[in-house]
Amino acid sequence: MSNIKTVEGGVTAAKGFKAAYTEAGIKYENRKDMAMVFSETPCVSAGTFTSNVVKAACVQWDMKIVKSDKPMHGMVINTGIANACTGKEGFDACEATAGAMSDKLGVPVDSIAVGSTGVIGMQLPVDRLIMGVNDLCDKLDSSLENGTNASIAIMTTDTVNKEYAVQFELDGKTVTLGGMSKGSGMIHPNMCTMIALLTSDIAIEKSLMQEAVSEVIADTFNMISVDGDTSTNDTFILMANGLAGNEKITSKDKNYEIFKEALMTVCRYLARKMASDGEGATKLFTARVYNARSKEEAKILSRSIISSSLSKAAIYGCDANFGRFLCAMGYSGVDFDQTKVELFFRSSVGTLQVFKMGVPLEFDEEYATKIMSDKEVIVDVDMHDGEAEAEAWGCDLTYDYVKINADYRS
Amino acid sequence: MSNIKTVEGGVTAAKGFKAAYTEAGIKYENRKDMAMVFSETPCVSAGTFTSNVVKAACVQWDMKIVKSDKPMHGMVINTGIANACTGKEGFDACEATAGAMSDKLGVPVDSIAVGSTGVIGMQLPVDRLIMGVNDLCDKLDSSLENGTNASIAIMTTDTVNKEYAVQFELDGKTVTLGGMSKGSGMIHPNMCTMIALLTSDIAIEKSLMQEAVSEVIADTFNMISVDGDTSTNDTFILMANGLAGNEKITSKDKNYEIFKEALMTVCRYLARKMASDGEGATKLFTARVYNARSKEEAKILSRSIISSSLSKAAIYGCDANFGRFLCAMGYSGVDFDQTKVELFFRSSVGTLQVFKMGVPLEFDEEYATKIMSDKEVIVDVDMHDGEAEAEAWGCDLTYDYVKINADYRS
Repeated sequence: MSNIKTVEGGVTAAKGFKAAYTEAGIKYENRKDMAMVFSETPCVSAGTFTSNVVKAACVQWDMKIVKSDKPMHGMVINTGIANACTGKEGFDACEATAGAMSDKLGVPVDSIAVGSTGVIGMQLPVDRLIMGVNDLCDKLDSSLENGTNASIAIMTTDTVNKEYAVQFELDGKTVTLGGMSKGSGMIHPNMCTMIALLTSDIAIEKSLMQEAVSEVIADTFNMISVDGDTSTNDTFILMANGLAGNEKITSKDKNYEIFKEALMTVCRYLARKMASDGEGATKLFTARVYNARSKEEAKILSRSIISSSLSKAAIYGCDANFGRFLCAMGYSGVDFDQTKVELFFRSSVGTLQVFKMGVPLEFDEEYATKIMSDKEVIVDVDMHDGEAEAEAWGCDLTYDYVKINADYRS
Repeated sequence: MSNIKTVEGGVTAAKGFKAAYTEAGIKYENRKDMAMVFSETPCVSAGTFTSNVVKAACVQWDMKIVKSDKPMHGMVINTGIANACTGKEGFDACEATAGAMSDKLGVPVDSIAVGSTGVIGMQLPVDRLIMGVNDLCDKLDSSLENGTNASIAIMTTDTVNKEYAVQFELDGKTVTLGGMSKGSGMIHPNMCTMIALLTSDIAIEKSLMQEAVSEVIADTFNMISVDGDTSTNDTFILMANGLAGNEKITSKDKNYEIFKEALMTVCRYLARKMASDGEGATKLFTARVYNARSKEEAKILSRSIISSSLSKAAIYGCDANFGRFLCAMGYSGVDFDQTKVELFFRSSVGTLQVFKMGVPLEFDEEYATKIMSDKEVIVDVDMHDGEAEAEAWGCDLTYDYVKINADYRS
């Protein structure tokens, strides 16, 4: 870990990546609503996509690109309209958008990924998209500021932009990995959440990069939930152009492990940031299940806790109503013996045990409320049944979640 | 159907059943919080219980009773405390409660079911429970009014009491079937919801009654959801004492079918009532999926729609944001082709198609809002992929749901 250090920036932190943003008026006027990332040097790519059967047109477009062995050069993203449930017209919009970028920058159309996020079941205004693409191509720039503005341009109901970058050494060469993500509602990833685009100058074989991505996503983006709704548009893409000059990683050696560690660091940061910025959220709600029989079970249990509406409402109300957390574990599908379970509430204020081996403990309600009033509240569950552990991240359920979503389209 | 008619009352509608209610001060003062139902004539019983691994002590107690071949005589229910996650002390409380009723009424202790609902992880005040039981035994009475008051006494966050009864003829004898139920939050049954107790004077073989119950529950109580949280306490029990004098049903003949139809009528009524009285709910939200490949798939799809937080928030906001409904179908686990799907919003105001064969339709937003402002909003989904259908019931997600649950224990 000590080898991996945080650096400034996001998608433009790594060598050779440019970004741009613009106001294209896709759905609203006077609002940044398009972003572009581009590498002139061809990139290998890896990605994971929503498991929702109803996949947005752009997700289907991107899956083809990431699965092919052809190089990737960039991605263009719009907010406002998700281009999901849009039939053939939706696919044509993807082709037109990627096509405009391809024409302008002189790269193949199938080297350009397309991301959309917003209302489902509405057609994109293709003329405005293409005007936006042309504008973006003109503005491409490798400054950190442009990277940050790109991450701001892809926000929808997000209240903070989400970007992060790290650097690490491989054989004396400095490698940079950074990225941006967006997502606040319809977040219950069964792959990853909403849109995340990472860039790196590392040199690595495509198949190995995909393996690392799949493994890391499973422990980061796939472990967060805001509202139990798995989006039609979830997209995670990592592009790497090799400009760091490290010896290309071609096996699971020490350098591969360092890269995976760095990827875990960036993804974990962005995933937690996304959970804590869940629609209407006032705090980050973490569940850690340990001493479980298997990692799979620990994951199911921790996800069930942070996904429960009643647990989330209790977190909002700073109410140590631990029965709801046990209840959520109970219906998760994992079989366990409650008489072996211990449950703790934890935050920077302190730790409080509330349940021990099948029996509720008496506790100081005032102290419990104090612990739960912190910005991050952690539920620790000791299963006493094995050695596996997992962590999941969510947020509290608030009036504002309802407010935001009762009238999202208007 | 024409043979089955609605009659007044609930648990005391059938011959030979008495009920009572009292204020025992279990958790709050001056509030009806205990109810009892009793039949001097021994009853056969059938039931279904929560699939949550964390089962309340009373659920475990009742499962033993319903599974045994011994007759059942009654049930005593308290609100305020759920007697879940309470270890051995919780089991002892069940035995003490049933024991007090058994002593007082001269029936075996294992003929008495016990129901509890309320906060999880808190011990019951056994002394007050027993005083309550003694009081209830003194007050037992077969009036319809006592039945209604029993159904009021088991309410927690419920805003309306839920009881219903029907009569039908079997071989010239009038048979009555009635019951009560409660439940408003932590409702996402994987068996049935919270507590429902039905009584009948029908004569029927225990195993056949259980078969009918299992079948009917799957299409009624198991098809509702308020918040996705499957409770630790879900209990459904049907008691039948045979006093109607019909020839005992011992095979799946015409009379069995009539009984099943009547059971379906009562359970469907109570289930819908429960969904529309979900915590904070302002309306009933029904999803009907038809022309599906199998009933199982139709059930999964319709349940996924009414369980989605985003769909529920859209229903609250009267927003015909149909993409959220398709999205919920997409992550349900059922594989389907969105280009075959049609989607309609429907209420007593009218019907509006919004999606046809993979393509969104233009529609009049004002008319859509009018349709969705009704007390029951129905989403009709035509899969064009088979002949199976299913219906699921939920409610909208409102500020009040959050309010009720952020501070439930205080």
